[in-house]
Order: sequence, then C-alpha cells, then structure tokens
Amino acid sequence: MITLLAGGVGGARLLRGLAAVVPRGELTVVVNTGDDDEFYGLAVSPDIDTILYTLAGLAPLERGWGIDGDTFYVREELDRLTEKGWFALGDRDIATHVYRTWRLRDGATLSRVTAEICLARGIGVRVLPMSDDPIRTEVVSDRGVLAFQDYLVRLRAEPAVRSVRYRGARKARPAAGVIEAIEQSSLIVIAPSNPFVSIGPILALPGIRPALAKARSRVVAVSPLIAGRAVKGPLADMLGAMGRNADVGAIADFYRGLATRLIVAPGDGPRQTADAVMEILEHDILLLEPQRAQALATFLCGLAVAL
Amino acid sequence: MITLLAGGVGGARLLRGLAAVVPRGELTVVVNTGDDDEFYGLAVSPDIDTILYTLAGLAPLERGWGIDGDTFYVREELDRLTEKGWFALGDRDIATHVYRTWRLRDGATLSRVTAEICLARGIGVRVLPMSDDPIRTEVVSDRGVLAFQDYLVRLRAEPAVRSVRYRGARKARPAAGVIEAIEQSSLIVIAPSNPFVSIGPILALPGIRPALAKARSRVVAVSPLIAGRAVKGPLADMLGAMGRNADVGAIADFYRGLATRLIVAPGDGPRQTADAVMEILEHDILLLEPQRAQALATFLCGLAVAL
Repeated sequence: MITLLAGGVGGARLLRGLAAVVPRGELTVVVNTGDDDEFYGLAVSPDIDTILYTLAGLAPLERGWGIDGDTFYVREELDRLTEKGWFALGDRDIATHVYRTWRLRDGATLSRVTAEICLARGIGVRVLPMSDDPIRTEVVSDRGVLAFQDYLVRLRAEPAVRSVRYRGARKARPAAGVIEAIEQSSLIVIAPSNPFVSIGPILALPGIRPALAKARSRVVAVSPLIAGRAVKGPLADMLGAMGRNADVGAIADFYRGLATRLIVAPGDGPRQTADAVMEILEHDILLLEPQRAQALATFLCGLAVAL
Repeated sequence: MITLLAGGVGGARLLRGLAAVVPRGELTVVVNTGDDDEFYGLAVSPDIDTILYTLAGLAPLERGWGIDGDTFYVREELDRLTEKGWFALGDRDIATHVYRTWRLRDGATLSRVTAEICLARGIGVRVLPMSDDPIRTEVVSDRGVLAFQDYLVRLRAEPAVRSVRYRGARKARPAAGVIEAIEQSSLIVIAPSNPFVSIGPILALPGIRPALAKARSRVVAVSPLIAGRAVKGPLADMLGAMGRNADVGAIADFYRGLATRLIVAPGDGPRQTADAVMEILEHDILLLEPQRAQALATFLCGLAVAL
C-alpha cells in the first residue's frame, strides 16, 4: 500500500499519476482540511474537492479548483441576494457542498461524507480527510490574522506572512485510518504541496509526527519548489517573508526527521544541497501533464518495491 | 391598505394584478408556510418563493413554481451524489434556498430573510410569512400521513385525502405584523388558493380566526373553484374524498363567519348558491393573464373604496 499526504493541486496531480500506476485499493490519500471554510453556510473543503474532482476526471487540467466546464448560475443569483462573493463556486461544485453540508448537519463525519462521494463517483482511491474535527489554518500576516481562504483567494496571497498556525489542531484527532495508513504502507509520499499550509496542518495533528518519524525510512517527500519557485501558490513568497531562502534546503529542513528521501527537480539536487540525513533524489517533478505525473509515480513505485 | 392571505400560484396571480393597481407600500401579503420543507438540508418555502418570483417578474407565466428559464445543473449533480430527487430545484432557485438556509442558521427569522430578499429584488409589496415558527401541513390519506410536498409532488396528489392537519400551528405565533395587517386594512382578500392546504394553515394560527371574524365585513374571499373545478391543484379531488361537492357552497362554508363576500366565476353565482350571510359576487376569476388579474384587482379596489 502507498499513502500520500496531500494538499490540493500538487497532491491531486501526483495522485492522478499514482492512481494510474498503483493497483485499485492499494492507494490511500490523507488530505489537508485546514483550508476548509464556509461560504453562504455551505461547508467547503477545497483540498478534498480538488482531489475528488481530479480522481473523478472532472477537474480542469490547468486550473486548480472546481469542475471543468462548470456554470455559475447559483453564484450569480447569490450575488444579487447578498454582497458580491469572492470565492468561486460553480453550480456542479455547489452540489458537492450542498450534499456535504446536509450530511454533516445530519451527523455524518467528514470521512463518511467523503467516502460516500467516492462511492457515488466511482473513485477507487481511499480518500481520508486528515481529521473529522474542525482545524482552521490561519495566516499571521502584516494585515493581521487571516483565515486561509481569505488570505489566499480574497487577498490573492498579497499580505506578507509572518507565521502560519492551525487552530483546533492540538485538540483534534486524525481521522480513523490515517495513523494506520502511515504505519502499514510500504511507502508514504509527502506530496509537492505547500509545507506550511497544505502539509503543515496534517503534521500538526496529535500522533502524526511520531508516526511519520517511526516510519521515516519509508517516507519520501516531493519538493514543491523547482529552481526556487513554487509550481503554484505562494510558497516562495511565504519562505521569503519568513526569512528563508526558497530552496530545497528549506524543504529538507521542514521534513527533517520525518522523511529520509526528498525528490527534487533535475538540477536542484545534491550539488546545491548537501544533506547528511536526507537523501536527495532528482526526478522530473513538474506534474501538469498526466504522463509526467505517471513517470514520477512509476519512480515512486520502484522505491516502494526497493524498500 | 389591502392585505391578501395567500398560498402559492392562485395567490401569486391575484397579487400580480393587485401590485399593478394598488400604490406601492399599500399592499401586504400574508403567505402560507405550511408547505415549507427541507430538501438536501435546504430550507424551501414554496409558496413564499412563488410569490417572490412572481413579484420580481422571474416566475414563468404558466408553471406554478421556480424561475423562468432556470437551469438544473446542481440538481443533476445531486442526483449523481445521492438518490434521485423528486422535487424540482433550479439553479437560480437554489440560490434562494442556500441564502435562506444560511440566514436562518445564523439566527434570522423567516420574516427577516423574506424582507431581505424583497429588498434585494426590489419588491415593493410587504411579504409576510404567516409565521416564523415551523408549521407543517400534513395530509391524512389512504396511504398514511404524508408531508404536504410528499403528497403533492412525489405522489402527484394521487392518495385520497381524509383530512388535513397543521402540525405545530397551535403552538406557533403569527409573524409580527400579520394580525395588525388584518386589523388595519380596509380590505382583506382571501386568495383563490386551496382552502385546506393554502389558507387553512394561516387560519389555524392562534389569533387569526378571531381577527378575521372581527374584520369580516372587510373580508372578501375569491373562489378557487370555477364550474366545480380547481384552476390548479387537487382541491376538487380533496373535497370529493372528504364527501363534499366541489362547489361554491363548500367554499362559502369554509369561510363562513370569517368573510362576508365571496367572489365566484360568472355562472357559479347566486342562482347556484343561496346564502344568507355571505354575499356572492360574480367576476372573472381566471387569473392566468395579467390583464384579467388586474381587472379583478381593480374590482377589489372598488370594494375597498366602497367599504
């Protein structure tokens, strides 16, 4: 079994590759829920949805959110009824949020609802929210403490980030199956997602760091940086604002003690980053095209077999 | 001031006429909420919505529900996620339900939410839900006790109706302004809506019957039957199943003591229905075309002036 720890886009792209290579039923993804928020009273889980839509073949190839070809009639009408919204919600996407909100109000866990959606959409990968308890990633910035979507979408990641915190994480429990997935997988992959806002919330849950530390010889991280730039999102700026260089060394530091291998882009490797305890492997990690994601997935499967 | 007591379609059609004739601010409509239900966790108020969409110019002329030209992408997707639904919910219509559900969960009353929608849509008529408390019309039928939408929409009004009851009505209070509207209006019009399932829930609220009885010389009802048939809906069948003839006499009996005038279709009048305490007036009451609704509205305004 292979387990992927993932945020949204980067995780989804790698997952598309893994799902094409790993036999059905042998793949688990643990998804960040720190980005979750409510819009118009609807429970929105952006990272879970990006993962689900990608696995269901509904995600647009380039855009990192929503359903390809979706319409926006509900949102247009909501804009007439209340102040203009800033979070994109397509009609088919809203069906997911209506369904999730309904089931959660009825007492179902987020894990349960996610499994129901997987079943309804014929998704064979086991998709686990990192937790069924509410965790909210907050960005401490030069414009105050911001809810994550507020920072990322409304303010377009413009505020300078001082730190990131995960409200509710310490009292939350990992969802059923998350720790077991880490313990029992032959390979645990940390997706090329933002370490602070996509992987950080998962690591902040009680029990996750110890489980990863124990499994670290089977844990491999994929760098979200290529030549000092994030493939998508505000990671490079965030590192800069925190006084770090946006380089592979910063990523290695983040996962030190939790992983023993880091896959970086060709040219970002050992010559730049000498590391005694983290093996740095070079491989193509630009995953936009499905074939390239499959190539990396095949490389990861080879690692899993070698271990 | 004129106050209309209304259910859905019949009320909305008469209201369209009244709104064209009565000066802005002089018209109040008290709307049945016994049809309210939840679908996918969304709070749906079918009669209020029919009224709001009609007043906003969004309602289809013939169909008695939803927004003209609406699309159904959310519902199509919900049908993929869960069992196929039987209640039609268009995308723009769903925006109303999402907004209402959100505001109600936030603690707003249904009156407040309705007023907000009126303001947002530029509706000048005062639209009052009959109550802010939940009342549910239930149909006692040969197939058991049915929620009203279940009876009307899912089962297409096919079960034989033994009686109708209004769960929650006795403990509910009329919404703020409802009793005052009845007390202060120069004319109170009971719309050509189904007496059992549209007007009955309003009458079942504490204080409404006494207020109407006191105002009865100013109360006029419009018959929902024309030549023994309901313009729309299951009224004639319901009367039959309850052992009553579907005629103007049954309507007069229903409103006896609460109204002193009943407007019936040409030919349905005094020759058929001799009534000592209810004055029977003949007028065109088929209101599908806006001009005919305006003609009746003008006739009603004449009554108001005469009183």
